[in-house]
Amino acid sequence: MNSKQIEDEEQRRQWGARTWSTLAAVRSRSPLIQCITNFVSMDLVANTLLSAGASPAMLHSIEELPDFTPNVDALCINVGTLSAAWLPAMKFAAELALKAGKPWVLDPVAAGASKFRMMACLELMKLKPTVVRGNGSEIIALSKASTESSMGVDSSHESTDAVEAAKSLAQTSGAIVAVSGAVDIVTDGKQVIGAHNGVAMMQKITATGCSVTALIAAFLAVDQLHALETTASALSIFGIAGEMGMETAKGPASLRTHLIDSLYGLDEAAVISRVKIASL
Amino acid sequence: MNSKQIEDEEQRRQWGARTWSTLAAVRSRSPLIQCITNFVSMDLVANTLLSAGASPAMLHSIEELPDFTPNVDALCINVGTLSAAWLPAMKFAAELALKAGKPWVLDPVAAGASKFRMMACLELMKLKPTVVRGNGSEIIALSKASTESSMGVDSSHESTDAVEAAKSLAQTSGAIVAVSGAVDIVTDGKQVIGAHNGVAMMQKITATGCSVTALIAAFLAVDQLHALETTASALSIFGIAGEMGMETAKGPASLRTHLIDSLYGLDEAAVISRVKIASL
Amino acid sequence: MNSKQIEDEEQRRQWGARTWSTLAAVRSRSPLIQCITNFVSMDLVANTLLSAGASPAMLHSIEELPDFTPNVDALCINVGTLSAAWLPAMKFAAELALKAGKPWVLDPVAAGASKFRMMACLELMKLKPTVVRGNGSEIIALSKASTESSMGVDSSHESTDAVEAAKSLAQTSGAIVAVSGAVDIVTDGKQVIGAHNGVAMMQKITATGCSVTALIAAFLAVDQLHALETTASALSIFGIAGEMGMETAKGPASLRTHLIDSLYGLDEAAVISRVKIASL
Repeated sequence: MNSKQIEDEEQRRQWGARTWSTLAAVRSRSPLIQCITNFVSMDLVANTLLSAGASPAMLHSIEELPDFTPNVDALCINVGTLSAAWLPAMKFAAELALKAGKPWVLDPVAAGASKFRMMACLELMKLKPTVVRGNGSEIIALSKASTESSMGVDSSHESTDAVEAAKSLAQTSGAIVAVSGAVDIVTDGKQVIGAHNGVAMMQKITATGCSVTALIAAFLAVDQLHALETTASALSIFGIAGEMGMETAKGPASLRTHLIDSLYGLDEAAVISRVKIASL
Repeated sequence: MNSKQIEDEEQRRQWGARTWSTLAAVRSRSPLIQCITNFVSMDLVANTLLSAGASPAMLHSIEELPDFTPNVDALCINVGTLSAAWLPAMKFAAELALKAGKPWVLDPVAAGASKFRMMACLELMKLKPTVVRGNGSEIIALSKASTESSMGVDSSHESTDAVEAAKSLAQTSGAIVAVSGAVDIVTDGKQVIGAHNGVAMMQKITATGCSVTALIAAFLAVDQLHALETTASALSIFGIAGEMGMETAKGPASLRTHLIDSLYGLDEAAVISRVKIASL
Repeated sequence: MNSKQIEDEEQRRQWGARTWSTLAAVRSRSPLIQCITNFVSMDLVANTLLSAGASPAMLHSIEELPDFTPNVDALCINVGTLSAAWLPAMKFAAELALKAGKPWVLDPVAAGASKFRMMACLELMKLKPTVVRGNGSEIIALSKASTESSMGVDSSHESTDAVEAAKSLAQTSGAIVAVSGAVDIVTDGKQVIGAHNGVAMMQKITATGCSVTALIAAFLAVDQLHALETTASALSIFGIAGEMGMETAKGPASLRTHLIDSLYGLDEAAVISRVKIASL
């Protein structure tokens, strides 16, 4: 190995150690994660959190939020099956988390699917999510709309790619922005980190995106001060569970099963040797 | 083989080729299928669509429909966990699909369970679903109520069986009607086609009926002009996935996993050799 | 074996025979179980009931209850994802079940999470559930609140454990109270029965608690007169399915699959030899 390779390898090992340490903290502290998420994903999101060692609480009723949300360790809001009936609770929960200094994560599912949905996402963005995670088209749509709403139409965004959109959204919002894809990227608007774990078939399982968003919330619950790095670690851990699940999967449904089993069983050696995170 | 057997075999092969061709079109075009479905089935419906190569979108909010529904490739409405809060969106989405010339499919779950539910199903029937799929008792209840509401009580329907009920419902509504059972049947009111794939244990998994209804929507999305044949193909494909899943299943839960894996992995040879569709 | 051991062994065999007989009755009669349950659990609850031989019906719309609830064989109400929109239907369904003499079971998920939730649970308790099943902290919270609301603050409850809380709740409410834990316990306020089946990893699967509550409802549907014993049997059967599933599980997700497969496949020999129920 030349000195560049040695440096890269050292950096990779540090990411491995940091990632394992965060997962170990989730397992030992079992943070309580409130999820206001879509109907499709509730089962997998809850099982992802349980398998990672966290405590999920699916509680969305506005009447309960003042008693409950200030006491959770992190909040995850996902607009997948958004409705006018649920939106006020999403916003109120985000406000309570913000006020209590608890990290909260937004998953802007299908942000561009309707004006109503985009407005909901923009209103939630104003409540200062710690992290926003979406796929490329969601982040591009949200970034474009955020810029438009604050600065008018910016046609330069027409041709923007997901990384530039993520950086722009991070800068205008103050949130860490994560984009899932063949390589997951995370940015605070300046630094860009890539997480290279995961397998393509995970996209053939519903709610894997929602689940990794919830996992980010669980990781933030035990390490709020390094949101950029912690988000990269959560993305990597979920990807590693998918890679290990893929070794015995015969299709998307068995991959889902094996992914959760692997997430539950992950040990330090597997995490250290498999984490592929690097600054871009 | 005598000439009758040769003819039957030839017909079966043609069904196999047509069915494979439709599945291949779903995989290559990845049609966007909006599902307004019940809470129990959302996970399996989404995973069924993903495994077949389609793109599921669970979006039910009335505020979003004008922006979204005209752009989908097909719509699936399932009344399983019906409520007064969701019914207006179901009807509005069906209207939008109808207006946009997009195929839509109705699953009248437990149609006879209450007057409220039957009225909802009848109102949805007026919005011209391309296909209605239910089990025998649902189709019999709906057919009887449809006849009663248009022509007064018809006591001859008291003793009708599911095939006759399906034909009658198809004639009065103009929809293709599919009835799931030991043999699945599909009719346009004149022709009756039987799809003989599937295994009994699929009935011990919740939401398999809902899932095949969504699969019909995905198939219609790529071949709207032959709704009768395409519906039979979708029923057969889901049944084949169940048959192949059953080869290694140890009970309903592993069957569910293997069914989805099999649906994802189906190749031309398996489809051609296994499709059992025939005119009745 | 000494005479005490012989007596214990005889008692255990009687519990085995009774438990098998109840499961066999569920399979042969296939009781219709209405579930108004939380969004997270609907899939697993439905599959648990199907695998046990019962017929699940997830139907929560207040408009449908007068037609539907009086005809079910048992009702299961679970407040997991409680909302002001759903609470009236929960209460109305419980009233209808009570009036029709049908058994109903309450799962007071996270009873202490908010004042709104606790009030909802207390209102539901007034509608005379046949059985209440929760974990230790839920039953302690509910028991304490029940006592407070009827008798003022009772500080002696500060240090109470789950068994004492369960007995107290059973006495004040008239319901059978079940507490899930390392050992499941069931009480009518006087007698206390312990069910010693199950494995710890079941707690790492979301909705296992909800599912065993629904299974209790299915068991009550075929044997309402011995609610104490029948509840113990249901807890034991679910635990046995978990034990057998654990033999081949590699983590929580495969355990979930194998548990349901095992529940479906349970035979008399397995039940008789594995049931561990005993008076405490």
